[in-house]
Amino acid sequence: MVKKAPRRTAERIQTAALQLFNRFGEPNVATTLIASDMGISPGNLFYHYASKELLVNALFDSYQAEMRDLLPAAADVRDLEHSWFFMHSLFELVWRYRFIYRDLNDLLSKNRHLEGQMKDIVALKEAAFAQLLAHLHTAKLLQQTATERTHCATHMVVMLTWWLSYEYVRNPRHAMEDASAQHGVLHGAQQVLSLMLPYLADTPKAQLQALMQVYADALPA
Amino acid sequence: MVKKAPRRTAERIQTAALQLFNRFGEPNVATTLIASDMGISPGNLFYHYASKELLVNALFDSYQAEMRDLLPAAADVRDLEHSWFFMHSLFELVWRYRFIYRDLNDLLSKNRHLEGQMKDIVALKEAAFAQLLAHLHTAKLLQQTATERTHCATHMVVMLTWWLSYEYVRNPRHAMEDASAQHGVLHGAQQVLSLMLPYLADTPKAQLQALMQVYADALPA
Repeated sequence: MVKKAPRRTAERIQTAALQLFNRFGEPNVATTLIASDMGISPGNLFYHYASKELLVNALFDSYQAEMRDLLPAAADVRDLEHSWFFMHSLFELVWRYRFIYRDLNDLLSKNRHLEGQMKDIVALKEAAFAQLLAHLHTAKLLQQTATERTHCATHMVVMLTWWLSYEYVRNPRHAMEDASAQHGVLHGAQQVLSLMLPYLADTPKAQLQALMQVYADALPA
Repeated sequence: MVKKAPRRTAERIQTAALQLFNRFGEPNVATTLIASDMGISPGNLFYHYASKELLVNALFDSYQAEMRDLLPAAADVRDLEHSWFFMHSLFELVWRYRFIYRDLNDLLSKNRHLEGQMKDIVALKEAAFAQLLAHLHTAKLLQQTATERTHCATHMVVMLTWWLSYEYVRNPRHAMEDASAQHGVLHGAQQVLSLMLPYLADTPKAQLQALMQVYADALPA
């Protein structure tokens, strides 16, 4: 019998765990469920991840690496279309790792590794949004005082981080299912971007509204 | 020996549970901890609340009754000072029952009673904010299209509901402690109200900024 390389199995465990955590919430998924979902023994899973916390940390590290790769793209945003794509990419990433956002406070209260890392990620998000807003200001698409920019960047971070929680409260049975991906990502990106609307000059404002409408029309009712 | 009336004990259990849930998070507090914290036997606690879920539901019902009492006050808001007091009262209520907000998604995934009720509360909050914005619009303090009002009310709800989670991510060791009450409530009220700033006319805008500054100055650094 050919034994699968340990590396392959570890990756498969991560994929299976991510899917189950996203659907049912991390506190509701035991490692035995992950093993049985994959058709491997609990002992085999234990060999790769001796605790659920180690598995959560491995997934968080992947999420974190992708977020740290993506956020610097804020430095290149110079117009509204670009802002849209940037926000859409951010929400796709949030969606793929939605279990982290779904049970964030509970995860933070139990896991020291996440505690420090998540704080840094939130600060990086806030800096990226402030930079994006500053660039749109320089391009004369948007007008804000420094205080308004700080407030607006904070609002954008809260909206990005907890938008899926809001969708979940409104529709707990379906909001986190794979079928809701397009809806969750598009609505989320719209909600974050709409925070900029009142600061936009007339022409870019009409442009962003038209962009938002195109995507709203593309959504299933 | 005089036996305490059951009603009194049930209330004392609620008070103790609320305090422990708020500090440590509901998933991290077992009923045995609540009993030992109160110096009563687990059996006595079980006599009043046969499960932690029943205790959570009792606390949620108190929270919900207070929220349903408070939200209609939005109908009377006609100026900015009034808006400030309304928002401050809302945040004080959120703070007193912060365990609900802290672990909202986890609670919702485990508890059918909360699932339906919380959805209604979020809808009521959103309607209250839309009403408040409409009144400020009528009073010519603020100018918004109907679409802008809808977006703004949604942003205010997300900010009211998850502001403490944002504070918690940034400062997990202290944000939920009693000593942070004043800070959490004032900053939260400010963040929600600052969503209205870009829509305000010049005079009320200066007035709200001054109001926010007075309260910011009153906060310990």
